[in-house]
Amino acid sequence: MEGAHPAILERLIATNTMQTAGYGYDQFSESARDKIRSACQAPEADVAFLVGGTQANMVMIDALLRPYQGVLAAQSGHINVHEAGAIEHGGHKVFALPHQEGKISAEAIAAAAKGYLHDANRAHMVAPGMVYLSQPTEYGTLYSLAELEQISAVCRRYQMYLYVDGARLAYALACPENDVTLPDLARLCDAFYIGGTKCGALFGEAVVIPKHQLIPHFFTIIKQHGALLAKGRIAGIQFDTLFSDHLYESIGRNAVDRADEIRAGLVRKGYQLAVNAPTNQIFVILKKEQAASLAEQVELGFWENQDTSHVIMRIATSWATPKEDVAALMKIL
Amino acid sequence: MEGAHPAILERLIATNTMQTAGYGYDQFSESARDKIRSACQAPEADVAFLVGGTQANMVMIDALLRPYQGVLAAQSGHINVHEAGAIEHGGHKVFALPHQEGKISAEAIAAAAKGYLHDANRAHMVAPGMVYLSQPTEYGTLYSLAELEQISAVCRRYQMYLYVDGARLAYALACPENDVTLPDLARLCDAFYIGGTKCGALFGEAVVIPKHQLIPHFFTIIKQHGALLAKGRIAGIQFDTLFSDHLYESIGRNAVDRADEIRAGLVRKGYQLAVNAPTNQIFVILKKEQAASLAEQVELGFWENQDTSHVIMRIATSWATPKEDVAALMKIL
Amino acid sequence: MEGAHPAILERLIATNTMQTAGYGYDQFSESARDKIRSACQAPEADVAFLVGGTQANMVMIDALLRPYQGVLAAQSGHINVHEAGAIEHGGHKVFALPHQEGKISAEAIAAAAKGYLHDANRAHMVAPGMVYLSQPTEYGTLYSLAELEQISAVCRRYQMYLYVDGARLAYALACPENDVTLPDLARLCDAFYIGGTKCGALFGEAVVIPKHQLIPHFFTIIKQHGALLAKGRIAGIQFDTLFSDHLYESIGRNAVDRADEIRAGLVRKGYQLAVNAPTNQIFVILKKEQAASLAEQVELGFWENQDTSHVIMRIATSWATPKEDVAALMKIL
Amino acid sequence: MEGAHPAILERLIATNTMQTAGYGYDQFSESARDKIRSACQAPEADVAFLVGGTQANMVMIDALLRPYQGVLAAQSGHINVHEAGAIEHGGHKVFALPHQEGKISAEAIAAAAKGYLHDANRAHMVAPGMVYLSQPTEYGTLYSLAELEQISAVCRRYQMYLYVDGARLAYALACPENDVTLPDLARLCDAFYIGGTKCGALFGEAVVIPKHQLIPHFFTIIKQHGALLAKGRIAGIQFDTLFSDHLYESIGRNAVDRADEIRAGLVRKGYQLAVNAPTNQIFVILKKEQAASLAEQVELGFWENQDTSHVIMRIATSWATPKEDVAALMKIL
Repeated sequence: MEGAHPAILERLIATNTMQTAGYGYDQFSESARDKIRSACQAPEADVAFLVGGTQANMVMIDALLRPYQGVLAAQSGHINVHEAGAIEHGGHKVFALPHQEGKISAEAIAAAAKGYLHDANRAHMVAPGMVYLSQPTEYGTLYSLAELEQISAVCRRYQMYLYVDGARLAYALACPENDVTLPDLARLCDAFYIGGTKCGALFGEAVVIPKHQLIPHFFTIIKQHGALLAKGRIAGIQFDTLFSDHLYESIGRNAVDRADEIRAGLVRKGYQLAVNAPTNQIFVILKKEQAASLAEQVELGFWENQDTSHVIMRIATSWATPKEDVAALMKIL
Repeated sequence: MEGAHPAILERLIATNTMQTAGYGYDQFSESARDKIRSACQAPEADVAFLVGGTQANMVMIDALLRPYQGVLAAQSGHINVHEAGAIEHGGHKVFALPHQEGKISAEAIAAAAKGYLHDANRAHMVAPGMVYLSQPTEYGTLYSLAELEQISAVCRRYQMYLYVDGARLAYALACPENDVTLPDLARLCDAFYIGGTKCGALFGEAVVIPKHQLIPHFFTIIKQHGALLAKGRIAGIQFDTLFSDHLYESIGRNAVDRADEIRAGLVRKGYQLAVNAPTNQIFVILKKEQAASLAEQVELGFWENQDTSHVIMRIATSWATPKEDVAALMKIL
Repeated sequence: MEGAHPAILERLIATNTMQTAGYGYDQFSESARDKIRSACQAPEADVAFLVGGTQANMVMIDALLRPYQGVLAAQSGHINVHEAGAIEHGGHKVFALPHQEGKISAEAIAAAAKGYLHDANRAHMVAPGMVYLSQPTEYGTLYSLAELEQISAVCRRYQMYLYVDGARLAYALACPENDVTLPDLARLCDAFYIGGTKCGALFGEAVVIPKHQLIPHFFTIIKQHGALLAKGRIAGIQFDTLFSDHLYESIGRNAVDRADEIRAGLVRKGYQLAVNAPTNQIFVILKKEQAASLAEQVELGFWENQDTSHVIMRIATSWATPKEDVAALMKIL
Repeated sequence: MEGAHPAILERLIATNTMQTAGYGYDQFSESARDKIRSACQAPEADVAFLVGGTQANMVMIDALLRPYQGVLAAQSGHINVHEAGAIEHGGHKVFALPHQEGKISAEAIAAAAKGYLHDANRAHMVAPGMVYLSQPTEYGTLYSLAELEQISAVCRRYQMYLYVDGARLAYALACPENDVTLPDLARLCDAFYIGGTKCGALFGEAVVIPKHQLIPHFFTIIKQHGALLAKGRIAGIQFDTLFSDHLYESIGRNAVDRADEIRAGLVRKGYQLAVNAPTNQIFVILKKEQAASLAEQVELGFWENQDTSHVIMRIATSWATPKEDVAALMKIL
């Protein structure tokens, strides 16, 4: 993990001595919100800057759902596995659906919604009120526009909110295989967040709610979750920079290119990829001994056991990964 | 559903004009607690009377777990499906495990606990802090003593509480196939409840915590959940009656006998049973038309779709089911 | 504390062997709901039967308020002092207002609402979303119809729900000084509950929501709070009996008459009453030694210290208090 | 509001391209923790970096208290007024105590604890489990060492945690009147936080728990509250800088000096101060017209109405307030 994109640091320095209003009422946050609305072609959208991904998910799910409602997610979804129960802490059940490389299907979602509606005992059950997706997923895979449109249609048919976790969204936007744009997300989702922390910022996620005032008292809800940034401008300046000169759309390009090189190199050398993912995450199957020996030379994330003698290891590139690192990795492998 | 066992109503009438302390501090509740301790061979046990099963589960899980802990349960477990999210409302994740006719195995529980402990990211994850079983299960099946001992050993090994939901416990105790006694439950579990509502009482569940003072401030926790009965004696009198003259151990017998007759009759007539359960619940596979036509003549509970043309229907007998009802049902079938 | 009014026990016995639907879908609950609607002149009202007062308050406040809203109550209000934090457990702040013998004024409520609305920092604050009153109050005092109308007007003006805790409502209705009827409550409140537990039932409180469907998914919310009675009819039968032959309106009469006798006797004997309350609760100031000596002969509730040498003790009568008990008490005093 | 102290920005730039572990496991965070332990003379202390003050309060109160416990605070305490119910969202009651210019007394705390312990109904009540203070208070006043020692003694006697909110702690440490040091806080409190956001950082609060492992699973609790910073080093670098070269102890000096000048100037010009506070906040009583006219020329915070014709306005200085601003203000006044 690095710090931030140089352009962001420069803006922070340039603006450091200015005095501004707090809590996101400053001119930088306002400008960033405008640029995001414009990039999403969502002129009425409410935009708020939160600090991290788990916080964004927790706040949005609590803000959109009533206490008796739950959220459908992939079994592998971040909210289901790696948020320490933040969603349940807010009182909401996560319904875990089977996934294909991190993705859930419109069919499975529809089946769950229908199953609930047709269950004679549904009044004793948590009502599915939202679908949670991540784009890219935790496996680095992407929903296609067609898939997202189907899921959105199912959500509207069954009156469930569609919410997309975009922690790594820049790496989707920069991926040649991707056909889902920011305006698509704004058109098809009820809420989503544009990840900053993993995409060039020091921290920060921009929550976008295309329909103005969908969530009454949203500011107070953020505050109640301990998620309100006093110096809101620090987030505002970062997103204002990320949405200037199309930086956000291009910042992921290096990561995807480097990941493609690593994937190609791995295949060339006879390694097997565990997942067919086109973004900045690489999942490679290694013998346990191999993984252990490699871990001494390079930062590798353990993902899961493939079988008794093999493990799946995760490599992630970023906007800042230098070409030399890829070359060095290739030599080691 | 009927009212209560006649012996209970008689006691309520006989004691109606007596004045007693409230909140379970009366002599009837004290006597009932003593009898339950004795029946469980758990002389130090804390015993409290709550009103219903979901309430008992909610209170016990909230009382035993810390906020970052969750509870392992069968996918089909009552807390996972039919409690409207009461457990999540208290902030706890339910980890759903695959089940065999409502039962989960010591192996699956151990694998989940081990998986958590060996996961490099476990600090970002909900910690499994409890195992929830129901005896009999939601499918009417029973854990054997050997199975319960294995599960208890796994729980102790991985420092998870073992909690048993005994909503229909009388129907286990009365079942010839059952080899798990109340003292076994007290020996192997950290907490369990003895069901009254479905076993002859107007309402009420007796929570048993074999280890005295395991839960500090338990009374206040009950009150905080809106679960404290002002006239606690109404529950006390009912359990005092159920635990006099071995009533609780025998009250389920009629239900199991009637259920056995129905099961035998169904098989004789060529119906297929969906579950091989020995207690008071019968699960029979019917063609959809059959189920619809039967439903006009007899109370049948829809359980789930077997396939596109067949459904599984549930029949439940009770301590009060008359032999004539079985005969009548057999004629209709 | 006694059991239930004899008419209730008789109905429970008479109906005991009948089989009915569960969860309040039985004919007795339906009949009770109709009678309550009729008594309240609220033909569209939703009526639900819960088990106890804290539970009713907890469920209603959670059901009506959004997470960022709190409830205004008297400092002495049951929800503020004696519910073990059940309201905060549901996430809501209780704003404690100064009280006069348990009552809060329309002026104080309006000032709090106005103070919030005019506070420049209100977006950082809990929004007052409800006013909680008890009738009679915890001090046995009564809101007059004029007072209730003023409070209701303030609530509507500031868009706060008005909710009345009627744990002891029968003792208000039976009091000659009272001028607030059930139809008044239905007309002026958004929700209230008619107390059963303290007013002749074994247990049970009837929640009344005059406006149909004000709370979507109310059944599921009740279930999620562990507050759904499986054999709902047990509550239904009790309220059906209490609302037959004007029993509920007359059941408190004996308690008020006996309390008047005790109050008159106390004054005659030179004791000082701490509160000028007309219902079934008597608050008398005693020297500490007096209180200690009396407590050996009669059940007295400690209320609070008046000063270093005097205490306030509480005596409560009920529908079942015999005249002889009053006479016996008078001899002791 | 300005950005950060220049030394902090310089360090962020200097370290920007380094790759480090996430979630606070980096060398900068480790170094910052060591320096804070050293400054507090608390070698065993657990130290964690959170993002903001409300978040720190919410996490610490949830982490230290059991669900049936509440926290004692001044009526004017930040957690009671300006955190949008974050503490109640976590399930805890805030007991509001009367205050003197933002301070509560050891006597009042002892009386509350004693009142609870001696209340016959305490099992129906929220247990006071913590005392919350802010140093400086919301009114800019300071607890003296003697006062803090008394409060700490009361807390230990009644087994309540003592927790100090140090959002503006640098302005206490820099104040000539202050006699409470960081080692005093570590010796007398169970937890406290050293404010960064208002004291020269871009954001960040350093939570200090003097007793190692007082809070098991603290990392997971932080994550569950959405309060875990992915790039933890951004906070670590800031606190490492603030605790190098005694920066934190001196950074508040300018603010206090400027505030003293403003206070002296106001008094000289005949204005009346509402609070006798020695730190960086000034509370001045103005006629309503005066306040309105001033507000057009200078940033003034409305505090509260003094009477119908006067208001109390708040002026806050910071580490960055230039002398010229004070001079300009004096001209306007």
